[in-house]
Amino acid sequence: MADTVPASTISSDAAHRVIAAAEAKATEIGVPMCIAVCDTGGNLKAFSRMDGAALLSTQVAQDKAYTAVGFGMPTGDWHDFISGDAPLAAGAPTGIKRLIIFGGGYPLKVDGAVVGAIGVSGGHYTQDQEVAQAGLAVLGVPGAV
Amino acid sequence: MADTVPASTISSDAAHRVIAAAEAKATEIGVPMCIAVCDTGGNLKAFSRMDGAALLSTQVAQDKAYTAVGFGMPTGDWHDFISGDAPLAAGAPTGIKRLIIFGGGYPLKVDGAVVGAIGVSGGHYTQDQEVAQAGLAVLGVPGAV
Amino acid sequence: MADTVPASTISSDAAHRVIAAAEAKATEIGVPMCIAVCDTGGNLKAFSRMDGAALLSTQVAQDKAYTAVGFGMPTGDWHDFISGDAPLAAGAPTGIKRLIIFGGGYPLKVDGAVVGAIGVSGGHYTQDQEVAQAGLAVLGVPGAV
Amino acid sequence: MADTVPASTISSDAAHRVIAAAEAKATEIGVPMCIAVCDTGGNLKAFSRMDGAALLSTQVAQDKAYTAVGFGMPTGDWHDFISGDAPLAAGAPTGIKRLIIFGGGYPLKVDGAVVGAIGVSGGHYTQDQEVAQAGLAVLGVPGAV
Repeated sequence: MADTVPASTISSDAAHRVIAAAEAKATEIGVPMCIAVCDTGGNLKAFSRMDGAALLSTQVAQDKAYTAVGFGMPTGDWHDFISGDAPLAAGAPTGIKRLIIFGGGYPLKVDGAVVGAIGVSGGHYTQDQEVAQAGLAVLGVPGAV
Repeated sequence: MADTVPASTISSDAAHRVIAAAEAKATEIGVPMCIAVCDTGGNLKAFSRMDGAALLSTQVAQDKAYTAVGFGMPTGDWHDFISGDAPLAAGAPTGIKRLIIFGGGYPLKVDGAVVGAIGVSGGHYTQDQEVAQAGLAVLGVPGAV
Repeated sequence: MADTVPASTISSDAAHRVIAAAEAKATEIGVPMCIAVCDTGGNLKAFSRMDGAALLSTQVAQDKAYTAVGFGMPTGDWHDFISGDAPLAAGAPTGIKRLIIFGGGYPLKVDGAVVGAIGVSGGHYTQDQEVAQAGLAVLGVPGAV
Repeated sequence: MADTVPASTISSDAAHRVIAAAEAKATEIGVPMCIAVCDTGGNLKAFSRMDGAALLSTQVAQDKAYTAVGFGMPTGDWHDFISGDAPLAAGAPTGIKRLIIFGGGYPLKVDGAVVGAIGVSGGHYTQDQEVAQAGLAVLGVPGAV
């Protein structure tokens, strides 16, 4: 067996570009947002709270990024994933630390591999998703809701 | 671009007056309350736990104020906001730290700008709202439920 | 008595410029850093962890910014402030949450008023200070160690 | 054996008077303070953060009150208490949650019985002590440093 597992993680430069693109979209739609990018270890890589963004979103944006990288799927997929499964529906949101089950967090992928995640909070989650997808586009990922 | 964003925050004197007015209303309706006022940064500015107020309300009052300033809307609006939206209904109360989705927290506004928030807990939330609105009236804000 | 106290806070645009200047200095001295900017309420405004920066520094940079805005003085002044005062020397670092008593955090000031703070971590604290001062210079603040 | 232990706790009215007296002293010496009063259960009874008071002091004032009621002695006595006792000197400040070992916290006593505590933070601890003692005087307690 190999001693190591290869892992790539998002660069600081890419994280800044992701955030800038997300901010541009948030400005365009007129809703100030908090935007977080974390690496493959779930650790914060870059963050921006736009002027006027909701204070509560500071932590939510970071938790969305953490959730997205922590399971490798968009936060918006969690509700469907658990809603027909009673133990998970009752137990996942309460039992899993920092889990956010509504949209706005996405894994960031390069060549099909997760290299980090983006989390956006500040508007309705459909707006958060739109802003996050503008960030995803920087890395060439088609934005799936 | 400007280096700063202008903002005002509630003064200590106003915070004391808000709490005194809320206490007077709580005494009038005969339900002892915990009353918290936080500033624009969500940090505690003033607090009072009336004799006989529920111990659990100590934290709830502070979290209601935090929630109200953190999203700029009364805590009592959250339930309607999320109740028709399944992912938020399941995920917001559990996923957003310190979020309280029942009434008793209101942003404090001066000249239309949020300068802090009040959070009241101790009775049924409709009583908490009545008491909080007595506090709001100090700053000339019409009390909306 | 007045209902409000003026409280301006650093803009998102200025926070980005502060971080970019700090990153440029960190690149120049060859030590990757974590750089955090918080607002007057101690809440995170912007953050960047440069490629290769120490993971531990993620939280330290944020805590340095929090300490600096929380007492209105550079973190590097704390050691001298407490070292001749036995109760503080023993009790401040352990008793005050998030307090960092070595250099790298500075209040950010505009027209003499604190509008937020920068915290830098990743090298020796003297390097952190040099990088933070490059950030301060963006707002025209002479960099005092 | 009796089923109960008698206990009195500070009233809300007295807590407000204690804080008002402390604020008046803080204003007199020109150092804005955070002032907390807790009850015999260590739970927050009343709190005030004066305009301009250090943000870090918000928690410290509460922890000083908690420490004072939690051991029934002024926080300023802890340093002497532990400084000649190596295990305590090394282990108490780090091991005991919310312990503050410098001055500014005092038990509040009525007829010799502890009924709560006051904690003051914002200046040097000698200033905090002076302000706290002005609060103690409301209950007729001679202010011991």
